[in-house]
Amino acid sequence: MADPAVKRDGVEADELPQRAEKKARVDGENGGGGGGEGEGGEGGEAESENVLCGFKTSNVLNDSAREKTMFIRGKLADQEAVVILEKTPIREDTLAELFSGSTLKLEMKNDIYSTYRLHAPPHLNEIKTTVVCPATDKHVTKYQRQESSLVEETGEDYQSITLPYIQKQTFSVQWVYNILEKKAEADRIVYEDPDPEVGFVLLPDFKWDQKQVDDLYLIAIVHQRDIKSLRDLTSEHLPLLQNIFQKGKEAILQRYNLPASKLRVYLHYQPSYYHLHVHFTKLGYEAPGCGVERAHLLADVIQNLQSDPRYYETRTLYFPLRANDGLLSKFKEAGRL
Amino acid sequence: MADPAVKRDGVEADELPQRAEKKARVDGENGGGGGGEGEGGEGGEAESENVLCGFKTSNVLNDSAREKTMFIRGKLADQEAVVILEKTPIREDTLAELFSGSTLKLEMKNDIYSTYRLHAPPHLNEIKTTVVCPATDKHVTKYQRQESSLVEETGEDYQSITLPYIQKQTFSVQWVYNILEKKAEADRIVYEDPDPEVGFVLLPDFKWDQKQVDDLYLIAIVHQRDIKSLRDLTSEHLPLLQNIFQKGKEAILQRYNLPASKLRVYLHYQPSYYHLHVHFTKLGYEAPGCGVERAHLLADVIQNLQSDPRYYETRTLYFPLRANDGLLSKFKEAGRL
Repeated sequence: MADPAVKRDGVEADELPQRAEKKARVDGENGGGGGGEGEGGEGGEAESENVLCGFKTSNVLNDSAREKTMFIRGKLADQEAVVILEKTPIREDTLAELFSGSTLKLEMKNDIYSTYRLHAPPHLNEIKTTVVCPATDKHVTKYQRQESSLVEETGEDYQSITLPYIQKQTFSVQWVYNILEKKAEADRIVYEDPDPEVGFVLLPDFKWDQKQVDDLYLIAIVHQRDIKSLRDLTSEHLPLLQNIFQKGKEAILQRYNLPASKLRVYLHYQPSYYHLHVHFTKLGYEAPGCGVERAHLLADVIQNLQSDPRYYETRTLYFPLRANDGLLSKFKEAGRL
Repeated sequence: MADPAVKRDGVEADELPQRAEKKARVDGENGGGGGGEGEGGEGGEAESENVLCGFKTSNVLNDSAREKTMFIRGKLADQEAVVILEKTPIREDTLAELFSGSTLKLEMKNDIYSTYRLHAPPHLNEIKTTVVCPATDKHVTKYQRQESSLVEETGEDYQSITLPYIQKQTFSVQWVYNILEKKAEADRIVYEDPDPEVGFVLLPDFKWDQKQVDDLYLIAIVHQRDIKSLRDLTSEHLPLLQNIFQKGKEAILQRYNLPASKLRVYLHYQPSYYHLHVHFTKLGYEAPGCGVERAHLLADVIQNLQSDPRYYETRTLYFPLRANDGLLSKFKEAGRL
């Protein structure tokens, strides 16, 4: 199940921490490492041998000061390994113990504001640690930070650079057809309009664990098979787009009690697979790929096609491509970057 | 200096953790609480009295599992207080000590993947703690999570709801005029084109500490004083917009060695102040407000005005408003939500 999820969104390196975080929350709820332990804290539970004691760091592949994560490449007993560290979310149910059981070091005091460095008991301040060992080059590439460049694609660039590149690739969308034909994931479908022209299947994205609507993320996949992306859309597709917009919002209201005013509904360009699909995410949830440089509001797409039937055929579109993306090389070869 | 920064971007609650994070990094570089301490760790430095020992939590105002932050309201010796916790970023220079000095608890092992809960020595895993005491209602409101709703604003809605609301407000932009007239922040100006029609001042946003280009954030403020926002733009303004786009990119290349392909250049709608300005941020840095629901790429704005001089006068625009925003009430009163 992991591979399709990665394929579906192409934000591979972002994915693991998110999963790790969700797991950490659940662990918290199960009380692992919780209040049952004494002050010193490590005695109550069987400890593993500290396998990381002999870990030799080669280099940091990626990190986020904002998310408190770090992806580290190194050697573990002569084998290539990747270690992923992520600090755990702060838990409301341990606040009382955290405040009473920690020590504070004053840093700054100014009027009503003061700042401290708080040293917490280790069992209240864990670091989620994932070890991949032996790790292959593919793992290293996957976790390595990739700089992106913004590409400017005119309508002509699409015809001469992007379209030939897409057609040469063997991007399989068999997994999409499996969903549309109910050969896979039929039990995950939230809503379907079976019409071959304007119909679609709505189902949760793999990134969403469906445990809370705070990070709601669904995908509408159209039944039509010949629309690769936003670039292919013309005013002919307005009934399809309006149908997805309307019925998708209704289905989400019915199933999740979330009104349209709490939704961000958009397409990606470039998409991560070339079969038309629409993203429905919770407004306020900073879903990967919802930035202005990649996302296009479905409402805007509809308006633009209403005023210019060939808007997306002719328009210059901007999007980021990662340094290792084959399409970026094609734009460079063509002298377009 | 703090107030204008808050005014400039309207993402008040987001701001503090970001500053706290930056401070934490600098602290790290200064070695505070670092390797000089013994295994047990708390003895080497003067500790403050644990002022939080008597803190009584009333409720959690906001938290982010992704950013590992929590904003807590409570009482400290009978005074209202807000406590802000934020886990510190993982530091590369302490990895060796972290790996050798921690204990690990195995959670899961599957093939080449295994996950652990790591218990670190407290001095290697601090929690940045900010205390506001006594806190006023204004602090509480500032840190309280605000749900947003997506508003649909037609050209007519703008004339009948938004414009009268903006005109009634006393949004002072005196601080903008101070910048344009060099009465304030003159030393922060990165570039200026003094032309009264197409000119602008480019300077770092307050959110950016200018220590690294990873989170580069500059603002171009136009010299013209009668353009409130994106809504006012017509094809007449194309020379102004193209000038900002071109010269802004050149100035950033020259000063920060960052090419245009690494930049996200956009306007906000609604903006946080009604004097036209353009945001320049580093591509890949998830700046607050760069989501598709609020940001409009300057390149798209230019294209849209080239094909339809009245595009932004007539178009339906979508944007999020926080629950406590006065403009949201106006849309509700008008039955538009």
